[in-house]
Amino acid sequence: MGKGRIEAFSDGVLAIIITIMVLELKVPHSENLQDLKPLIPVIISYVLSFIYIGIYWNNHHHMMQIVKKVNGSILWLNMHLLFWLSLIPFATAWMGENHFSKWPVILYGFILLMAAIAYYFLAHCLISFHGKESTLAAAIGKDKKGVISVIMYITGIILAFINSWFGFLIYVLVAFMWFIPDKRIEKKLDNN
Amino acid sequence: MGKGRIEAFSDGVLAIIITIMVLELKVPHSENLQDLKPLIPVIISYVLSFIYIGIYWNNHHHMMQIVKKVNGSILWLNMHLLFWLSLIPFATAWMGENHFSKWPVILYGFILLMAAIAYYFLAHCLISFHGKESTLAAAIGKDKKGVISVIMYITGIILAFINSWFGFLIYVLVAFMWFIPDKRIEKKLDNN
Amino acid sequence: MGKGRIEAFSDGVLAIIITIMVLELKVPHSENLQDLKPLIPVIISYVLSFIYIGIYWNNHHHMMQIVKKVNGSILWLNMHLLFWLSLIPFATAWMGENHFSKWPVILYGFILLMAAIAYYFLAHCLISFHGKESTLAAAIGKDKKGVISVIMYITGIILAFINSWFGFLIYVLVAFMWFIPDKRIEKKLDNN
Amino acid sequence: MGKGRIEAFSDGVLAIIITIMVLELKVPHSENLQDLKPLIPVIISYVLSFIYIGIYWNNHHHMMQIVKKVNGSILWLNMHLLFWLSLIPFATAWMGENHFSKWPVILYGFILLMAAIAYYFLAHCLISFHGKESTLAAAIGKDKKGVISVIMYITGIILAFINSWFGFLIYVLVAFMWFIPDKRIEKKLDNN
Repeated sequence: MGKGRIEAFSDGVLAIIITIMVLELKVPHSENLQDLKPLIPVIISYVLSFIYIGIYWNNHHHMMQIVKKVNGSILWLNMHLLFWLSLIPFATAWMGENHFSKWPVILYGFILLMAAIAYYFLAHCLISFHGKESTLAAAIGKDKKGVISVIMYITGIILAFINSWFGFLIYVLVAFMWFIPDKRIEKKLDNN
Repeated sequence: MGKGRIEAFSDGVLAIIITIMVLELKVPHSENLQDLKPLIPVIISYVLSFIYIGIYWNNHHHMMQIVKKVNGSILWLNMHLLFWLSLIPFATAWMGENHFSKWPVILYGFILLMAAIAYYFLAHCLISFHGKESTLAAAIGKDKKGVISVIMYITGIILAFINSWFGFLIYVLVAFMWFIPDKRIEKKLDNN
Repeated sequence: MGKGRIEAFSDGVLAIIITIMVLELKVPHSENLQDLKPLIPVIISYVLSFIYIGIYWNNHHHMMQIVKKVNGSILWLNMHLLFWLSLIPFATAWMGENHFSKWPVILYGFILLMAAIAYYFLAHCLISFHGKESTLAAAIGKDKKGVISVIMYITGIILAFINSWFGFLIYVLVAFMWFIPDKRIEKKLDNN
Repeated sequence: MGKGRIEAFSDGVLAIIITIMVLELKVPHSENLQDLKPLIPVIISYVLSFIYIGIYWNNHHHMMQIVKKVNGSILWLNMHLLFWLSLIPFATAWMGENHFSKWPVILYGFILLMAAIAYYFLAHCLISFHGKESTLAAAIGKDKKGVISVIMYITGIILAFINSWFGFLIYVLVAFMWFIPDKRIEKKLDNN
């Protein structure tokens, strides 16, 4: 089964998710500069989510490049990842509108956590389908970054119960960690 | 006539349908955990529709892989399928907001029924265009699953008049039945 | 210059237009069957526009299949066509919500007229770029259907001043006329 | 690393941006011609933004045609460009609804300025990745048009403090300047 259409569909969904988030930036009805002030937390929240979707797109892109074949389970694990990512616009808006208060930050972290777990399952199903000797298995390896992210999200969620800004800061840290595309895969591609 | 653009257009429409459904998850204006509570039925409804669109995308993907050519009628039967699927976000929101009450559940079932019939027509037009000896005809065969779905949707709609949860449960059952991608087609592809 | 990306972009825009129209089907807040009644004109209006966008996608698809190259002017004439088509969701919603009354029907016809003219310019620029001896020129020929459509839209707009239903009926007639994909092009493709 | 998916993702995002802008054209609830009058500035604003997104798509398309390879930084610089373009629907709506008054026009110009700078970074990163002797470097050359645009946007923003219409006029002028696709690249492509 070809991988072309799974890439096309994922790209479509990610492109829509990243763009409809902007619809939550409600246009103010008057024309003064200070009307933009209440939008500042919404914009900060939007920027973080934009980067997160960008990271997922980037890593998905990298991973799919060395994928050779897909099967039914992989299609569904990919849908599962897209499901959690599709909830990001909702959590982004709730977090931005409520100025990064406790429950919205916890929900945002929970959705990031579930998306990370979904990505982990997708990657490992792809590896087991391609075999432990495949380029893909070698490229992803032990997936330390994936495991660290999950631990950090959980930490962020717990800390958000104390002070929601701690949670937010940890989510920003994870984003930074992933910002750089997966060198492991790029290296492998150069070698082959 | 090539099948590439019909795949691209269908993927685009399905990607948008699956993503705009999330816009019906209205962001609550306050920041408490209990603000999410009224959203629970909307989310359940969203999950079911997400799975249904996923099923349609999956099966459409599988079927189109063994399609060799398309004609004008097939383009329009595909549009007809997309039309019914495009109404799913509306029915999903109505069903979720009204806690799975009678008429919304009936409407949801009716739209699923029409989509199933539209898919049936598309599949059978593709078969008659490729010939009864084609891989496609062999792969889809007598299409028992398609016929069973139609019967189940009708049963669900009728039962919803008695108790809407019966209807809902039957729609969930149909989704489970289709959850696994079409083994018949995968098998045929492996043989060729 | 390749034609692939112009097809991809047009498909994307048309897929979004056809799908966001459904957002104008506002979900009723109560759960009774009669709550759907005020939506009937909106749905009729939606069906007509869905068919129109389908027609444009179909014919665009057919025309682009025999296009060999594009240039800057063609990119912009294509954008011009997409601009008018992008206004269809607005006119559709206004017409549906106001039960096919005079001005909304006139505006809807005006936008269809402008889209038809935009398509005409696109087709003729493609012909002059490919040469009068090209397959494309032979396939489109004198474009009688395009000219008849323009005349019918104008007639529809004028009749709408008397009774808006006359205008609406004429738009339905034009849609029927175009419903069948362009046999001229399909025939030419078979010969080559 | 292939360029195909970066093109597909950018096309998707641009197609969605250009289409969701139309959602800001709020459908009037009554049926008279004068109900469209308050929409006139919103439509003017929409037309300008439609042309701008068209210009970006056009030039992106042209530039990507002679790109041979991409890397991680280029993926992110492309995301950065899409980020600023994704804010255009917001600025468009604010500017249109407030009849081109001071702060909305300044914000609109600021977003155009940031998008122009993002495009500049993307182009120059592509050049340095392909080498100074590459077709791409020769085609883009000193990028006078890019530099002039940045200067004009800044001028427009400053003039908008005096009279917002001056700013608006300058944005229209920049659009005209870019309206014609990049002849430099087209010429280079013909020579090779």
